[in-house]
Amino acid sequence: MERLDMKVITNRDEAEVQAAPVPMITSPRGFTAAGLHAGIKRKRKDLGLLWCQVPAAAAAVYTTNAFQAPPLGVTREGLAASQGRMQALLVNSGNANACTGEQGWLDAREMRRVCAVELGISESLVGVASTGVIGERLPIGRIVGSLPRLTASLTQEGDQDFGAALLTTDTFPKTAEVRLTVSGREVRIAGAAKGSGMIHPNMATMLAFLTTDAVIEPPVLQRLLKEVTDESFNMITVDGDSSTNDMVSVMASGLAAHPTLDETHPDWERFRAAFAEVCRRLAQMIARDGEGATKLVEVTVRGAETLEGARQAAKTVVGSSLVKTAVFGADPNWGRLLCALGYCGTQVNPDLVDLWVGDHLLVHRGLAVPGAEEAAKETFLGDKVPFVLDLHQGTAAATAWGCDLTYDYVRINASYRT
Amino acid sequence: MERLDMKVITNRDEAEVQAAPVPMITSPRGFTAAGLHAGIKRKRKDLGLLWCQVPAAAAAVYTTNAFQAPPLGVTREGLAASQGRMQALLVNSGNANACTGEQGWLDAREMRRVCAVELGISESLVGVASTGVIGERLPIGRIVGSLPRLTASLTQEGDQDFGAALLTTDTFPKTAEVRLTVSGREVRIAGAAKGSGMIHPNMATMLAFLTTDAVIEPPVLQRLLKEVTDESFNMITVDGDSSTNDMVSVMASGLAAHPTLDETHPDWERFRAAFAEVCRRLAQMIARDGEGATKLVEVTVRGAETLEGARQAAKTVVGSSLVKTAVFGADPNWGRLLCALGYCGTQVNPDLVDLWVGDHLLVHRGLAVPGAEEAAKETFLGDKVPFVLDLHQGTAAATAWGCDLTYDYVRINASYRT
Repeated sequence: MERLDMKVITNRDEAEVQAAPVPMITSPRGFTAAGLHAGIKRKRKDLGLLWCQVPAAAAAVYTTNAFQAPPLGVTREGLAASQGRMQALLVNSGNANACTGEQGWLDAREMRRVCAVELGISESLVGVASTGVIGERLPIGRIVGSLPRLTASLTQEGDQDFGAALLTTDTFPKTAEVRLTVSGREVRIAGAAKGSGMIHPNMATMLAFLTTDAVIEPPVLQRLLKEVTDESFNMITVDGDSSTNDMVSVMASGLAAHPTLDETHPDWERFRAAFAEVCRRLAQMIARDGEGATKLVEVTVRGAETLEGARQAAKTVVGSSLVKTAVFGADPNWGRLLCALGYCGTQVNPDLVDLWVGDHLLVHRGLAVPGAEEAAKETFLGDKVPFVLDLHQGTAAATAWGCDLTYDYVRINASYRT
Repeated sequence: MERLDMKVITNRDEAEVQAAPVPMITSPRGFTAAGLHAGIKRKRKDLGLLWCQVPAAAAAVYTTNAFQAPPLGVTREGLAASQGRMQALLVNSGNANACTGEQGWLDAREMRRVCAVELGISESLVGVASTGVIGERLPIGRIVGSLPRLTASLTQEGDQDFGAALLTTDTFPKTAEVRLTVSGREVRIAGAAKGSGMIHPNMATMLAFLTTDAVIEPPVLQRLLKEVTDESFNMITVDGDSSTNDMVSVMASGLAAHPTLDETHPDWERFRAAFAEVCRRLAQMIARDGEGATKLVEVTVRGAETLEGARQAAKTVVGSSLVKTAVFGADPNWGRLLCALGYCGTQVNPDLVDLWVGDHLLVHRGLAVPGAEEAAKETFLGDKVPFVLDLHQGTAAATAWGCDLTYDYVRINASYRT
């Protein structure tokens, strides 16, 4: 299947697809949100609610981890029962409700049930998600006890509290929004995400919730979400660990009131590009906020024989511990990038490979460019380190994002629960 | 193909297969060694030579990295030309002679040629290996200039200098030796290895050189080496990076003078077990000496449906950054082991999984055992942390070895070249 180039926002498009000045997940028509401290975490907000005034067309993708957490299964059941509609999304942080057995399912269903009662809607219209420590029972009493206060506090400005309630080891909230016109009507697409550790491409590998007021049917939305996830959220890695809990969902209120979008709509490609832009921005924010990270690392592989090969190569290189530590140490140790490329499983001819970092060609046709390392040093000192590997074997390209591996990654994860 | 259980040295065998009190790679009949400082590294020994008084039956396995370094190709050519014979092995540390293009091939061939001249043997009987920084030209003049002194200093006691010349970021030399009887004759099997970073199972993933005085033909030796590598060196991981340079070789002098060993010999299984024991010991030493490591981590997966699945699961869990940091922090965070098991790609039923650490059952049928974490804490404080995951889905089992992920791993790799 042919995919769009990663840089879908061209100069021409930029005139029409605009990034919102202050991104808000509640910016698309119909959405409000809330967040509060329910007592799952010690102090910080840990329970969030996203609400749509109408039952939204919805879609979701889930982690492929065999130990998929109960809330994901409950959300999947709900979307099936409602035929792709969702009106509310309840998410807690501080406890993943994973590896909790049958009790975990009961707890996930209970948080959904009470939320639906408070909101006066069908249970199948409520999605649930959890993130945090694995293997401990969800403090369901605290969640249920906080729901009246949470549902009563839904506002458009609640987006900040909602975003805060998602976070675990994140150091900043992650929100993105773009606006475009579809059939002459303004359409907004927004998203909020969390994710800092246990991040690795395999499916939806963290929590991200997208909203839009576009008019679109659930099956089209599901196809779009799956495709775009593969080129955004599935292209980031922090530590190679694919979580039990991660999920990306999207709710489309339809309140922009334009003719229904699908692949045949004249504005489809622009809508797809805008949707992908929101997902890529969130994905990059997650990579940049990788546990302990000081830099965003971007690896583009081009000239690959296949898209799958390009993706595999980009993800492998950006995920290499030795590449990550070299970036942390601002060491233009290009041999580590070539080494990672060499074991990624993608067809590579060593004698053809070019490697760029920023504007500096470090490796030409597999050999070091004399003097280039010294010149490239400054690029390694920036807060974003962009690599391009050209395999010169075909026309496929892909980009993956990650971060450096630092003392703080070790500190955070050696003492996560203590 | 059915494999032996990993714990091949049973009580009965132990009476016959003895670990040598002071392991020496020159202990098998016919071998001498030497090592010196040629000036590739600043101060430490960086050039080693292993010599057999007769052309030994030989075998080798090589990294699968696409950027396989020239010395591996040169060694492979030599073994092919000599029909599986090797009499000398020349190895340098400090420079990997990888990603060096055509010049790298010329340099590898030149170090082999001059070594053969000094020793007065055919070039095809000399193996070469290199380890160290990638992408810089080998200082071939220093190597060639040191060869007369190196070849003149071969002794049985030279094993220590040889072992020292292999090391890069290793903190200790790695040697193992066992002795057994074959057809009533004492046979010795020994090995020396190096490896600390850029260690990941994919083929031979570091340097290890084995010697024996057993009588065995090259094709049989090659089959044995390949099989045993898959259950020893290919089951360790330090950082998930498979190097460009790694190789395992074995030389069999035949000087034990017993009837030739092959799979039909009555002592074959004991010989195979002894050979595997040497490889496992070296592999574990490499894992324990992983860059920055403070603990050896051992993960056994049993009850898997297939051997391949058991190996994949064990390697994935032992390689998880979150498992490694939890071990470093002595945090019995079993959820991370289950999470890693969940994304390893092996068929897993979460409701059947048991997890042991040492003698403590942490997880029974997918659920936490109350109070077990506290009791298990002490096991996490030891210098070896052994996990057993029982999938209860079949009869296959495998063990993988790794180490914890520490501040020092980051320090070592953020500043490797500076």
